[in-house]
Amino acid sequence: MSAAPTRPLTLGFDADDTLWHNENIFEKVHVRYRDLLARYHDAATVDRTLFATEMRNLELYGYGVKGFTLSSIETAIQLTAGQISAEEINQIITLGQEMLAHPVDLLDGVVETLSSLSGTHRLLVITKGDLRDQERKLARSGLADHFQHVEILSEKDERSYDAIFRRHAIDPRRFLMVGNSLKSDILPVLALGGSGVHVPYHLTWAAERVEHPPRAAGRFFEIQSVRDLPAVLTTWSAGL
Amino acid sequence: MSAAPTRPLTLGFDADDTLWHNENIFEKVHVRYRDLLARYHDAATVDRTLFATEMRNLELYGYGVKGFTLSSIETAIQLTAGQISAEEINQIITLGQEMLAHPVDLLDGVVETLSSLSGTHRLLVITKGDLRDQERKLARSGLADHFQHVEILSEKDERSYDAIFRRHAIDPRRFLMVGNSLKSDILPVLALGGSGVHVPYHLTWAAERVEHPPRAAGRFFEIQSVRDLPAVLTTWSAGL
Repeated sequence: MSAAPTRPLTLGFDADDTLWHNENIFEKVHVRYRDLLARYHDAATVDRTLFATEMRNLELYGYGVKGFTLSSIETAIQLTAGQISAEEINQIITLGQEMLAHPVDLLDGVVETLSSLSGTHRLLVITKGDLRDQERKLARSGLADHFQHVEILSEKDERSYDAIFRRHAIDPRRFLMVGNSLKSDILPVLALGGSGVHVPYHLTWAAERVEHPPRAAGRFFEIQSVRDLPAVLTTWSAGL
Repeated sequence: MSAAPTRPLTLGFDADDTLWHNENIFEKVHVRYRDLLARYHDAATVDRTLFATEMRNLELYGYGVKGFTLSSIETAIQLTAGQISAEEINQIITLGQEMLAHPVDLLDGVVETLSSLSGTHRLLVITKGDLRDQERKLARSGLADHFQHVEILSEKDERSYDAIFRRHAIDPRRFLMVGNSLKSDILPVLALGGSGVHVPYHLTWAAERVEHPPRAAGRFFEIQSVRDLPAVLTTWSAGL
C-alpha cells in the first residue's frame, strides 16, 4: 500500500517523560521520602514497600500524583508502625502538592520536532494520569496548539487505544505512537496493527518495565531522542 | 424551527447524584470524620475548615475522592495542631478507599427512563471527578450501553461544554442537559444556547450551590424525579 499524500498520517505522543520530564520529579521525591523514613528502615525496604502499596491501590486510585501521595502516607504509617508524626505526614502532603505545582520542563528537541511535524501530520497526545494534572501540564507546556486532540486515559492498553482509533477514525496501519514506555505506548499499539517509536527516558518506573523488547519488523523503532523522529518517519512511511 | 424527525436530539446526563447516589456517601463520611475530630472541635468548625481546605486545593487536586481524602488529612493535622495520631490518619485513608469501592446505588427511575429514551435520542454522560473512579462507577452501574459517549471532565463550565459541542457536532439548540447541579449542569449550558433540566438531589455540596435560579423561558425546567423527564422532553421538543 502506498501512502496517499492527501491523507495525513496520525502520530500519537505520550506526555510524561516523552514531551516533558516527569520521572525525575518522582525520583527527587523518593529521595526525600527515604530520608523521612531513614531512622526506621533502609532505602530498599522503603522503596519495595511503597511500590507494593502503589500496586495494591492501583485499581482503586489509578495513576497520578494524588494516588501516589495517598500510597506514600499509607506506607509511612505502616513502615513506622504508626510512630510517624502528623507533622511528617504533612511533609508528604506538601511533597505531593509540590509535584502538582512543579514547572513543566520540556525534553530536548520537543518544540522543534512538533513544530516541524504538526503541519504535515495529525498529532494527538495520548497520556494517562490525573485528569486535571495532565491538562495543567499540557497548558503550561505551550505545546497544546500542535495537537488536534488530547486523550487522557485511566489506562493505556489495547482496549483504550482501540477506542481512540474508533473515535477518531484512525486506521492503525497509518498510526504511529511515540513514547518512553514499551508497556503503555508501544506493545498495545503493535498488537492492534499500529507502529511504535520507543524513546527511552533515563528513568523508568518499575510498573512500566517489560522484560522482552517487541519484535515487529518495519513497525517498531527505537531512537535516543525525539530529534530522530523525522528520519524514522521517512523510513516508516516509505514502507506503508 | 420545527424538529427534524430524522435528526435525534442529544441529551446530556450528569452522573453523581443524577444517575446514582453520591453526596450521601460523602455525608456519611463527613459524620465519621466529625466523630474522629470531636474531642478537638465542634462539627461546624470541622466542616468549615475542611471546606476551606478543599477550596484552597481545588485548583491543584480537582474534583473527586482522592483530593477529598488528601484535604481531609491536611485539615485533620491542622485542626489538631499535629496531635492526631498516625492510626487516626490511617482511618481517613481507609474512609477514602471505602468511598472508591462503594457499590453504585442508582437513583429511582433511572433504568426505566434511560431505556425508554436511548432508542430515540442520542445520550451522553457528562461528568467531572477522578477519571478511574467515574469510569468504574459507570461500568458498575450497568448503564453504559445506553450512552453513545462518556465525557469525564476536570471542570464543567462554558468552555468544556463548548468543546463537547464541537467534538460531537452538537447544535446547542438541540441539546438538553439533565443534572442535579445548577452551577455545573444547567447555567453553562443555558449560556451557550442549550437547554437544561434540573433534578435536585436532597443534598448539595456547598461548592455547587447557586443563589439565583436561572431564567430561560422554554429552555429551563425543574423536575423532582428523572421519571418526569419524558414529559419535559415532549414540551421542550414541541418548542424547537
